[in-house]
Amino acid sequence: MTARLVHGGDLGSLRSAFPEAPQPFVDLSTGINPWPYPVHVPNDAWTRLPQRDAEVLCREEMAAYLGAPPSSLLLTPGTQIAISLLPLLVSRSHVAIASPTYGEHEQAWRTAGHSVTAIDVGNIAGLASDVIVITNPNNPDGRQMSSDLLLDLARRQAAKDGLLVVDEAFADVAPEISLAAHGGMEGLVVLRSFGKFFGLAGLRLGGVLAPETLRRRMEAAFGPWSVSGAALAVGATAYADAGWVADMRQRLSAAAAQLDKLLDGNGLQLIGGTSLYRLATAPDAARLHRHLSSHGIHVRRFPYAESWLRFGLPSGEETTRRLAAALESFS
Amino acid sequence: MTARLVHGGDLGSLRSAFPEAPQPFVDLSTGINPWPYPVHVPNDAWTRLPQRDAEVLCREEMAAYLGAPPSSLLLTPGTQIAISLLPLLVSRSHVAIASPTYGEHEQAWRTAGHSVTAIDVGNIAGLASDVIVITNPNNPDGRQMSSDLLLDLARRQAAKDGLLVVDEAFADVAPEISLAAHGGMEGLVVLRSFGKFFGLAGLRLGGVLAPETLRRRMEAAFGPWSVSGAALAVGATAYADAGWVADMRQRLSAAAAQLDKLLDGNGLQLIGGTSLYRLATAPDAARLHRHLSSHGIHVRRFPYAESWLRFGLPSGEETTRRLAAALESFS
Repeated sequence: MTARLVHGGDLGSLRSAFPEAPQPFVDLSTGINPWPYPVHVPNDAWTRLPQRDAEVLCREEMAAYLGAPPSSLLLTPGTQIAISLLPLLVSRSHVAIASPTYGEHEQAWRTAGHSVTAIDVGNIAGLASDVIVITNPNNPDGRQMSSDLLLDLARRQAAKDGLLVVDEAFADVAPEISLAAHGGMEGLVVLRSFGKFFGLAGLRLGGVLAPETLRRRMEAAFGPWSVSGAALAVGATAYADAGWVADMRQRLSAAAAQLDKLLDGNGLQLIGGTSLYRLATAPDAARLHRHLSSHGIHVRRFPYAESWLRFGLPSGEETTRRLAAALESFS
Repeated sequence: MTARLVHGGDLGSLRSAFPEAPQPFVDLSTGINPWPYPVHVPNDAWTRLPQRDAEVLCREEMAAYLGAPPSSLLLTPGTQIAISLLPLLVSRSHVAIASPTYGEHEQAWRTAGHSVTAIDVGNIAGLASDVIVITNPNNPDGRQMSSDLLLDLARRQAAKDGLLVVDEAFADVAPEISLAAHGGMEGLVVLRSFGKFFGLAGLRLGGVLAPETLRRRMEAAFGPWSVSGAALAVGATAYADAGWVADMRQRLSAAAAQLDKLLDGNGLQLIGGTSLYRLATAPDAARLHRHLSSHGIHVRRFPYAESWLRFGLPSGEETTRRLAAALESFS
């Protein structure tokens, strides 16, 4: 059993590491939209078991939003549990993970006893692995792969009874590269997250698009009612709200451009990202990270790349001002 | 893959089966407390990933409520997902299930490829099965087994590397028979449910007490953040609210006695239950079930026992009045 990975977004440990830092803590350590979709939970969604028609509605709205066949979609209590569970439902495999990426993929496949290799995404063409895992767009560097290229790869995996797993946790801001429309095809698993783009990471809602046999196996492993009544209600409303979605894509994109300007103006070099987070290098990243933390601003570091810092979006003027002041006071 | 079992509590299918029945539908088809714990969800619980300290607090409050060692407890998004997942983490076994009981146990073990036998609880003493599953108190008949007897059985299972799985979904109203204090001992898995006693089945919160190796395996299968921020917040508050718990036990017990009187006065014969549901036989149960449904009152039938009807508690005077009127008009 491997230890828990370190993730962004946990304020308790930050507060104890930097007890003197000014409050409130500015958490830029995740890629979660700081402008959440409004939450309205009907009373029945708390008191009753999650209702079948609420589940059907949420699934249909999510599928419509994704342009995916509803029958290929399984709703899950967050994406993470699908990442953790999937390796238990696949026979012992050799797994290639396009790296670096979200660390829980490797952890989950290894813990379940599969053999795992980290690969560079440039070397995918001739790969013989049973399972290939690609995050698209990638976290943390935002690298994007075209849907055509991935579709080819999925077809090749299908032909040899293999799997291509595409984690589209951040694809809400890059819908043109999504494979969701091909949900259900043999050889392809697509993982989707609700909480990041809609800013409701605590709600726990995700989706898996998978070929029928595997989808049924996952469905049995989750059993009925794995998704809360609140998640079904909020998810159904949010996925149907095309106006909010379009506005939010623009707002995030503008905020990301503004953040880029701020980082660039303070000597950081942008190397990628999505409009939910930006990845930059700094010559003295470890010290800058500590400096920001002591100013109550938390950004994300990565154990495998010393000079990288990932910045989530500041939620407004005050947060931006504090980030700017902290960056400017670094020397 | 087996089909979905039929459960109580799904109003959509009832409405379409009895479109002319008076509204609102009175749902007595579950064993969920009709007087829910009040829900207050701090805004951060929606927007942030479920926080580590919120998880620790909820786990500690639940463990204290149960009198269980916190280190043996894993929080889950409802109990059902633990029932569905557990069979994937246990090597191919012969499984004996004290029956009749909650149908998802059999479904889950069979679907995962184990061999399953339904046993009578009286025949447990010499049982050679690797895994024994007992719901205590049982659903639907309320049969109770003493903690001493089950503890003996758990020790015997441990001695042969087997498991005793005790589903205590309704043990909140019979805490004296719980094995929670022995959580973590080898050979014993205890499943607990939040939603039934606290009346919040849509929240999705449960707990598993398991020996360390198995608990860690389950923890890895769920991954981080499987329980929502709302469930952690509400669960922590509710489990710490000893006054509410004591009052609710009394209130449920009084309501169950009142329901018994009503059923008895209308020619049904009580055969068991807990203070969250009552099981009765009626000479013409199928017809009575339809009669109640056509009056907008839904109670539970069981495919294996034609004369059984299970009644949840009416939520108040109006509901009780409607149930009484419907029972009295049956001839």
